Amino acid sequence: MEKQDKTRSEKNGKTEKNEKPPDRPEAGSVGIVETKYFTFAEPPDELVLESGEKLGPVTLAYETYGKLNDKKNNAILIVHALSGSAHVAGYRSAEDKKPGWWDIMVGPGKAMDTNKYFVICSNVLGSCYGSTGPSSVNPKTGKPYGITFPVVTIADMVKAQKALLDSLGVNKLITVIGGSMGGMQAIEWTLQYPEIPESAIVIASCAEQSAQEVAFDAVGRNAITVDPEFENGEYYGKDKKLKGLAVARQIAHITYLSEEGMEKKFGRKLQNGQKFSYKIINREIPPGCDEFEAGFENEFTVESYLAYQGKKFVERFDANSYLYITKAMDYFDTAEKYGGGSLTRAMRKAQAEFLIISFTSDWLYSSKQSKDIVEALRVNNKDVSYMEIKSSYGHDAFLLGNKNVTENKILTQAIRNFLSHAKV
Amino acid sequence: MEKQDKTRSEKNGKTEKNEKPPDRPEAGSVGIVETKYFTFAEPPDELVLESGEKLGPVTLAYETYGKLNDKKNNAILIVHALSGSAHVAGYRSAEDKKPGWWDIMVGPGKAMDTNKYFVICSNVLGSCYGSTGPSSVNPKTGKPYGITFPVVTIADMVKAQKALLDSLGVNKLITVIGGSMGGMQAIEWTLQYPEIPESAIVIASCAEQSAQEVAFDAVGRNAITVDPEFENGEYYGKDKKLKGLAVARQIAHITYLSEEGMEKKFGRKLQNGQKFSYKIINREIPPGCDEFEAGFENEFTVESYLAYQGKKFVERFDANSYLYITKAMDYFDTAEKYGGGSLTRAMRKAQAEFLIISFTSDWLYSSKQSKDIVEALRVNNKDVSYMEIKSSYGHDAFLLGNKNVTENKILTQAIRNFLSHAKV
Repeated sequence: MEKQDKTRSEKNGKTEKNEKPPDRPEAGSVGIVETKYFTFAEPPDELVLESGEKLGPVTLAYETYGKLNDKKNNAILIVHALSGSAHVAGYRSAEDKKPGWWDIMVGPGKAMDTNKYFVICSNVLGSCYGSTGPSSVNPKTGKPYGITFPVVTIADMVKAQKALLDSLGVNKLITVIGGSMGGMQAIEWTLQYPEIPESAIVIASCAEQSAQEVAFDAVGRNAITVDPEFENGEYYGKDKKLKGLAVARQIAHITYLSEEGMEKKFGRKLQNGQKFSYKIINREIPPGCDEFEAGFENEFTVESYLAYQGKKFVERFDANSYLYITKAMDYFDTAEKYGGGSLTRAMRKAQAEFLIISFTSDWLYSSKQSKDIVEALRVNNKDVSYMEIKSSYGHDAFLLGNKNVTENKILTQAIRNFLSHAKV
Repeated sequence: MEKQDKTRSEKNGKTEKNEKPPDRPEAGSVGIVETKYFTFAEPPDELVLESGEKLGPVTLAYETYGKLNDKKNNAILIVHALSGSAHVAGYRSAEDKKPGWWDIMVGPGKAMDTNKYFVICSNVLGSCYGSTGPSSVNPKTGKPYGITFPVVTIADMVKAQKALLDSLGVNKLITVIGGSMGGMQAIEWTLQYPEIPESAIVIASCAEQSAQEVAFDAVGRNAITVDPEFENGEYYGKDKKLKGLAVARQIAHITYLSEEGMEKKFGRKLQNGQKFSYKIINREIPPGCDEFEAGFENEFTVESYLAYQGKKFVERFDANSYLYITKAMDYFDTAEKYGGGSLTRAMRKAQAEFLIISFTSDWLYSSKQSKDIVEALRVNNKDVSYMEIKSSYGHDAFLLGNKNVTENKILTQAIRNFLSHAKV
C-alpha cells in the first residue's frame, strides 16, 4: 500500500527544465542508509510458527535510524503494511531520487526524531524485500520455497521481530507504530509481548479482518492462482509477467481509495481524447504505455490508472508473497486468539498506552473497526486515545506521500504529541 | 445480478422428506410461459448504433404476460439488470422448479397485475439469453461474433426495445421499470422516447456510472481478458471453463453485498471445521464442490460462497456478453449525452412521472446517486417521488428472491401504489 510508484510523468522522464535537482540527502533526512540482515533460527533451533510448522534459518532485512542510547530505552519499532519494506527513511545512494516509504515521519527533527529515538523497521516474514519468504531459497532443496513455504501469521511476523530486537539488545520499545497491516502487528505486539512496548500507535487498521476484507483478499488471491503463468508458484527465473497479480493489485487499489476521492481524481475523464473509442478491447498501446500495461482497459483515466498500478506492482512485488501476506491478514483475529472470541477479554492483557487513528473515508479499514478496539480498551480501563481524521483519500490516507497534505500534518502532530509523553 | 443460482443445499439435491412438491404453476403465477423471438433490422436496414456502426439482423428474445387491451394503453416494460434475461415470471415447463427472476412482482393479483397489465420484457442487445450478442452467429462469417460484435450502449438497447414495442403495436407505456442497469434503461427511455413512457420506476441505479463503478467493471473485464482460455473472445465450442469470468463475478459479488450484510451472513466463519488449515493453496475438493469451484479459495465461508457464485456464473453466462454489457454501463452518462454535462439540463426533456428508489446499504449504486436524479428532476419541476428503503442487503436488496423480506414488501407496495395512479 506504499506509494513507491513513480508518477507517470516521472516515469516518462519529463522534468521541468528550470527545476533544480534536489540536494540528496536534504536537511531533515537520515541520509544514506543501508539495509542490514539478521539471520536466526538456524536448524535445529528453527522458529516455531503459529501453525506448528518450523522454519529456519530465518533472515530479516532491517534498517535502523538514530542511535540506541546507553539506557536502551529510546527505541521505536515501525511495522509496515502489505507491500512495504524495511526501507522507511533516507536514500540508498546519493543518486537515489526517492526516499524510504515514511521518510516524512522519520529523521532529525521529524515526528520520529532520530536525534532522540532509535528507529527500527524490518521487512516482514513472508515478504520479498530481503526477509525470508516464498521467493527465498529453501536450503533443503536449493530452490525457492514457492508455495511450499509455510503459512505465516501476524503473530509469526511479530515473533521474528522480537528475535531481531533481542539481537539488537532492545527489550523495551517506546512505541510500536504501523498503519494497515502494520497496525495489526502493533496490536499483536501489545498482547504477545505486553511488557515490551510502552505504547502502540495503530493507524487505519483493525483487530480482526472483516468478511468483506477477507473477500477482497481472497478474490485477489484467486486472480493470481488461476493465472496459468503462476504455475502453482513455480514461476521464478522464468521471466513471467504475472497478469493475475496485476489484477489482484487493481482490485486492492479500488479498496484503497474512497468513492469520493475517485470521483474527484478521475470522475469520468477519458485517458485519450474526448470521445468514446467504442472498442470492446483496445489493443493499441497508448503513448507512455508498454505492452503489459496496455493489456488492461485504459479508455477511462481511472482504468489507465489501475492498469499502470497493476504493472508497477508486478515489477516490484512477488506473487507468492502476496498470497502469504494477505493470508496472514485474513487469519488475523485478536478476539479469537487472545479472548476466546471476545475482543474485550483479549485486550485485558495489553499494558501499552494506545493511540488509535482512523480516517473518515476509509471504507476498507473503517472507523467502526478502530472504534471497536478503542471500546475494548476503555472497558478494560486501558489508556487509549482515539482520533478520526477527516479525509477523502480513503485507506490511502494513512500513507500519503506529500507531507503538506492536511492528513499528514495532523498525523505528524498526533504522533509527535503522543511521543512527547515518552520518558527517555 | 439476478438470484438465478440455486442454493448449495438445492444443488446437492437435499430436500426435506415431508416437504410436498409445490404445485406448478401455483396461484398468482402467470403459469407456463414461452420465450418468443423478434427479428428486425435485416440488411440493408440495419440498426444504426450509437457508435455509428450498423448491426443487422437483430433478434430480441422476449416474454409477455397478460393481454394488451383494445386501447393498447395497459403495457408495462420491464428492463433487466446485467445478467438478467427476458424470463421475468412463470415457469418454462410443468417440471420447472424455479420461476422467472421477478416472479414475485408479476402475475395475477401481484404488484404488476397481469389481469390488468400487459407486461413485456426482452433480453438486452449484447446479452446471451436469446437476443443478438457476441455469442450469436454473424451471418456474414457463419461464426460467432465474439469481440467483432460492435459495442452497444444503453441507448442502443432501448432503441432495439422500441422496435419490439412497435412490432407489438405498443406506442404507450404505463411504466418502464428496472433495477440497476434496468434503471439506466428506464432513464434512457424517458429521454430517447419521452412521449412513450408515462412513468418510470428507477431502482438502485444511477444517471451515470461513477469512477468507482467503472473501476470495478474494468477490473472484472481485465480478469476475463487476461485469462489465456479467453482466447481473445474466440472460446466458443471449445468447452472452456473461463476462470477469469469467475473472478470477475466474484469481484462484482462483493460490490452487491454490504459490509454489514457480509458480517451478518458470513462473519469469520470457516467452511469446514473450526481451525485454520494453514495451507496457502488448498487443492482438496471439499464435499459438494467440483474441481472448478475448488480452484478458488474456500477456507472461510465467504470465500466458499464467492467460489460457488463464480462457478455458477461461468455455467450460465457468456464472458463476451459480460464485457459488452459492463462496457455499455460504463459508457452510460445521461448528463453528457442529453445535457452537455449537466444532469439538470438533461432531465428537462423527460415527460414521465418518476419513482426513484434506493437502499440505505447499497454502496455500489448509492442513495446519493438516486438523489442526484431526484434533484435534477425537481429543479425542472418534474413529477418525482423518492423512496430510500432501509436494508442491510446492499445492492442485492433490489432483487431479493424471498417475497416476505421487508425490502420486497415495501418495494411491492411502492410499485402497487405508484401504478394505481395509472389510468387504464
